[in-house]
Amino acid sequence: MNYREESLRKHAEWKGKIETRVRVPLDGRDSLSLAYTPGVAEPCLAISKDAEKSFTLTRRWNTVPVITDGTAVLGLGDIGPEAGMPVMEGKCALFKEFGDVDAFPICVKSKDVDEIVRTIELISGSFGGINLEDISAPRCFEIERRLKKDLDIPVFHDDQHGTAVVIYAALINALKITGQKIGELKIVINGAGSAGISVTRFLLKCGAADIIVCDKAGIIREGDKNLTAPQAEIARVTNRDFRSGSLYDAMNGANLFIGVSGPGAVTQDMVRSMAKDPILFTCANPVPEILPELAKEAGAYIVGTGSSEYPNQINNVLCFPGLFRGALDVRASDINFEMLVAAAEGIASGAEGRLSRDFLLPPAYEKSVHKKVAKAVSIAAIESGVARMN
Amino acid sequence: MNYREESLRKHAEWKGKIETRVRVPLDGRDSLSLAYTPGVAEPCLAISKDAEKSFTLTRRWNTVPVITDGTAVLGLGDIGPEAGMPVMEGKCALFKEFGDVDAFPICVKSKDVDEIVRTIELISGSFGGINLEDISAPRCFEIERRLKKDLDIPVFHDDQHGTAVVIYAALINALKITGQKIGELKIVINGAGSAGISVTRFLLKCGAADIIVCDKAGIIREGDKNLTAPQAEIARVTNRDFRSGSLYDAMNGANLFIGVSGPGAVTQDMVRSMAKDPILFTCANPVPEILPELAKEAGAYIVGTGSSEYPNQINNVLCFPGLFRGALDVRASDINFEMLVAAAEGIASGAEGRLSRDFLLPPAYEKSVHKKVAKAVSIAAIESGVARMN
Repeated sequence: MNYREESLRKHAEWKGKIETRVRVPLDGRDSLSLAYTPGVAEPCLAISKDAEKSFTLTRRWNTVPVITDGTAVLGLGDIGPEAGMPVMEGKCALFKEFGDVDAFPICVKSKDVDEIVRTIELISGSFGGINLEDISAPRCFEIERRLKKDLDIPVFHDDQHGTAVVIYAALINALKITGQKIGELKIVINGAGSAGISVTRFLLKCGAADIIVCDKAGIIREGDKNLTAPQAEIARVTNRDFRSGSLYDAMNGANLFIGVSGPGAVTQDMVRSMAKDPILFTCANPVPEILPELAKEAGAYIVGTGSSEYPNQINNVLCFPGLFRGALDVRASDINFEMLVAAAEGIASGAEGRLSRDFLLPPAYEKSVHKKVAKAVSIAAIESGVARMN
Repeated sequence: MNYREESLRKHAEWKGKIETRVRVPLDGRDSLSLAYTPGVAEPCLAISKDAEKSFTLTRRWNTVPVITDGTAVLGLGDIGPEAGMPVMEGKCALFKEFGDVDAFPICVKSKDVDEIVRTIELISGSFGGINLEDISAPRCFEIERRLKKDLDIPVFHDDQHGTAVVIYAALINALKITGQKIGELKIVINGAGSAGISVTRFLLKCGAADIIVCDKAGIIREGDKNLTAPQAEIARVTNRDFRSGSLYDAMNGANLFIGVSGPGAVTQDMVRSMAKDPILFTCANPVPEILPELAKEAGAYIVGTGSSEYPNQINNVLCFPGLFRGALDVRASDINFEMLVAAAEGIASGAEGRLSRDFLLPPAYEKSVHKKVAKAVSIAAIESGVARMN
């Protein structure tokens, strides 16, 4: 199927992928008086005395906006806020379908960090959590950091952490197959935008000891004057041999390649130069850094991609519905590292009994995996002390 | 039933009056690829080339936020943004139930006009229209005026115009019974907040010639130094005899009293002082300015209230679902006076064949009235030149 052409046709036919559903009776005088005036005055007063009650007397507890400024939509780049809406709406549909989270799309018509942060803060009282989406680096880091600091509800930028979580989930299972440990791996990450930087930070916290990050100009090295602040921070904790050169140089002898870059970034020669039986997670979407068949022909042992067209799809959809479900269920005040690790382990556990080189992760439309993620995340929230309910 | 106590219990049990519903299949690889990546890239690109397509390729066309700052919630006053959420959520449920409009609640944590306007402008690309709610006067006038000017989607402050529309609808039918014309009436309006001012402006445009507006300090008169800017504007076009005094003085000889004030504002003596067979719309909620039985005992001919406990409920719910349905159906760029009059006439027509002193308007839970309103509003939008589709 030509998904893109067919998708355009379907979107015109659907006229929206989500809608509102009414959860209460509104069919007569009494029911209107309970759900609306005069009855509704009483829950209003209760919340007025204790704002926390907005989580129990309205849908706030289960409601999450999917917010973008349209600056880094899919692989399409800065296409504008309205143009990001089909992705945001699709994400909202996935939130509901797989996590029973009531999400709705909001696009913000500004690229100014202060203005985006302020807008989200001002509307945050309506929500149980905030999902940031497709905001370009390096602005996304500051926006998320400031919101996490200011708000007492979970804030999550999916392009950063969702990507890190699903890649780590795939890695957990790949290492079960190869018998390696994360600390032994020579890792190359290609792409130093929001995903690449977040994956790097995350894997370091998970025990990775040897990571080289590349961007379009090659290996990122401490001291390089052309780096953004987040890249410079990464440069201080990666590439401790201070290597320089191209992606080709970086990949020589590596055990694991993670691509969050673009199609065609990796050649068969690069794969041949890697250590024996290498793992490649080529997540560029929709076309991976190297086609899986070519990677395997050149010696790749395990290959995962971001695409549904090949085995081992490494897909954010495996993470965010269950992650928010788990966080909302215990009224978590944050989504912290412990919860992200728990989400990755929950996703990885979804392949149990079926795990193989061609079945690293369960497909995202398997509902049971999202339940596992939610449960693991709730437990991690409670154990790490950010749950307000349990 | 004690609606308020029961409502609090119900709200705790409901845990939300609305939720999200998914409108598309998401049950396998193909359906995910159409609704989300990679297929979704194509509608994104289409909108990127033509932002107008966000109305046909997403749910934007049917989506309206119900936005408050929590400063004038019901009769409760400034109870805070989160505390307004049960009303906003209830309104969203009514929007869907009676207008099939996908509404969701947003509370804004600011009382600053510039900040509220800017926030709404920045998120407006997600929506087909904007419903403002329970924002205190006089800020609500400026907020609405600026948004109407800046945005090319309909902006509507229900407390102003919704109230004016339903009161005018009740008046249309009351005058069918009494045989009077609006231009002959001596009208007293008590309450000079957002509703009172808006009702005054609206009735003047509909042909009313003799209106006196009162607030807590009595009759509003041109030149009074204590008036807000919107009140001063009203003072220049009402009370052309430059009367002064109390509400009691104003009501002497009046044919129509409209109360958008508070309980107990009107006494039986005041009703007795009115012209023969007077009409009283005592809309203070939940307790009217005078109880209908007392008003009738004192000579009132027709009495309407804001409450569902008495006959002739004059309820905004009769207006906003059908009004937005009609505006969204033709992609109106505005909700203008012509559309508001059409809405009032549509509501009034809902009582046809049943009209009596005790049946001025149909009950809001009658679905057919909202259809009449929607149709009348769509036609008015087309005829007045603000429809972009028909």
